[in-house]
Amino acid sequence: MSEEVEKLFAVATEAAKDAGQIIRKGFYLRKNVEHKGQVDLVTETDKACEDLIFNYLRKHFPDHKFIGEETSAALGATADLTDEPTWIVDPLDGTTNFVHGFPFVCVSIGLTIKKIPTVGVVFNPIMNELFTAIRGKGAFLNGSPIKASSQDELVKALLVTEAGTKRDKATVDDTTNRINKLLYKIRSIRMCGSLALNMCGVACGRLDLCYECGFGGPWDVAAGAVILQEAGGHVFDPNGGEFDLMSRRMAGSNGLLKDKFIKELGDTD
Amino acid sequence: MSEEVEKLFAVATEAAKDAGQIIRKGFYLRKNVEHKGQVDLVTETDKACEDLIFNYLRKHFPDHKFIGEETSAALGATADLTDEPTWIVDPLDGTTNFVHGFPFVCVSIGLTIKKIPTVGVVFNPIMNELFTAIRGKGAFLNGSPIKASSQDELVKALLVTEAGTKRDKATVDDTTNRINKLLYKIRSIRMCGSLALNMCGVACGRLDLCYECGFGGPWDVAAGAVILQEAGGHVFDPNGGEFDLMSRRMAGSNGLLKDKFIKELGDTD
Repeated sequence: MSEEVEKLFAVATEAAKDAGQIIRKGFYLRKNVEHKGQVDLVTETDKACEDLIFNYLRKHFPDHKFIGEETSAALGATADLTDEPTWIVDPLDGTTNFVHGFPFVCVSIGLTIKKIPTVGVVFNPIMNELFTAIRGKGAFLNGSPIKASSQDELVKALLVTEAGTKRDKATVDDTTNRINKLLYKIRSIRMCGSLALNMCGVACGRLDLCYECGFGGPWDVAAGAVILQEAGGHVFDPNGGEFDLMSRRMAGSNGLLKDKFIKELGDTD
Repeated sequence: MSEEVEKLFAVATEAAKDAGQIIRKGFYLRKNVEHKGQVDLVTETDKACEDLIFNYLRKHFPDHKFIGEETSAALGATADLTDEPTWIVDPLDGTTNFVHGFPFVCVSIGLTIKKIPTVGVVFNPIMNELFTAIRGKGAFLNGSPIKASSQDELVKALLVTEAGTKRDKATVDDTTNRINKLLYKIRSIRMCGSLALNMCGVACGRLDLCYECGFGGPWDVAAGAVILQEAGGHVFDPNGGEFDLMSRRMAGSNGLLKDKFIKELGDTD
């Protein structure tokens, strides 16, 4: 099994690096942008990366299942997650950043086995940072082990979240009300535009806490979940319950702040 | 005069690069952190960088005036800005990021002549990005010309701001209420923890709009102001009035969105 997981990991890493080169090229030659909703964007790069990644994974693992942001959008639905090995891919997380040239963009490739995130690869080709993890084998940044912070005081914790893409009044009020409440409890807040990289930021200790509700789908968090967990952090539902990969709700923390953070997040249902 | 400005620029750039190496070293060896207010931090690195920069500038320009974050904090007051050539320095902008290891940190060195920002150097030694400008001679990133974005629709604009360090109810409510209001008008929001780098982000077109009130002092904006203006952007008071370097209030935009942005910022007095 271990040898097989190592192969899964090697293939995922290769695919992420190759897709990263497409992102990198596009990043410096931004153009031909299409629209997807009011404030979301999808690019030719996004599509080219998903094709590259799925073709590459399919060649090596023809029996595996695949869930991707672009194919799900084309289908109008996200496939159900089964126990079978399933690759869950965001070919370009941080598309708004990509369009604007803001350097927090990445490829996110996760693999679930029996529904459990087992392999995670997140690659930011602009900052040249490759975050990786295999369940039970630790988390790494460019090959060096990483771990979540040891901060145990909420008031000294740095939180990352996003404003999301929905602009109905209920969502916007909920977003800013929660930020208002949290600002009294934490040190400060960051918003960087990529949930996968936010989770990796907590995994490597640059950030202490993250949360987001109503994001795109499991492709945003499948890789980040195993990376953060293997770095000693926690991934959970913002209401304190178990993390559900398909729920479009997530919160994350280092190893020490989970309970305090849940208490302050309050009702997120 | 031009030759003299070139010398001023060369000395400022050298000082920024040398201080950047101290920041870089400290960034990867973070420790011995002191406290400055509830959620602000000052580090040994901060002090070492300010000493290095002021000693270097004093050696070359013994008659110039100096305003720095650390010396002002020690004095308990910011010196008045006069018409004389005045170096205005933030030795380490983004101290919270520095402490947490989040890569948006920089040295900011500005020079005013007759109170007008004339030379600006902002160096991020972690991402290795050097933003520079001399009044009338354009703005540059690592030596290549930069310009602000050509976005003219607010709904497609990316805004950057900060939650600041004050946690009284009036300030926190003001911060989140303004974000709430703006989210309906713009594409999305970023918070990255360094005002100097936020201004440079607008200058190089990665971001379209920025604003902040109640920040530390003129050292946060003196360099960024000339860089953003030389990149074709605007720097102004959030209420639409003229930018006042000493007011601790600023807004910035690309060349096209200033009036629309002021309208949406609303009352900030």
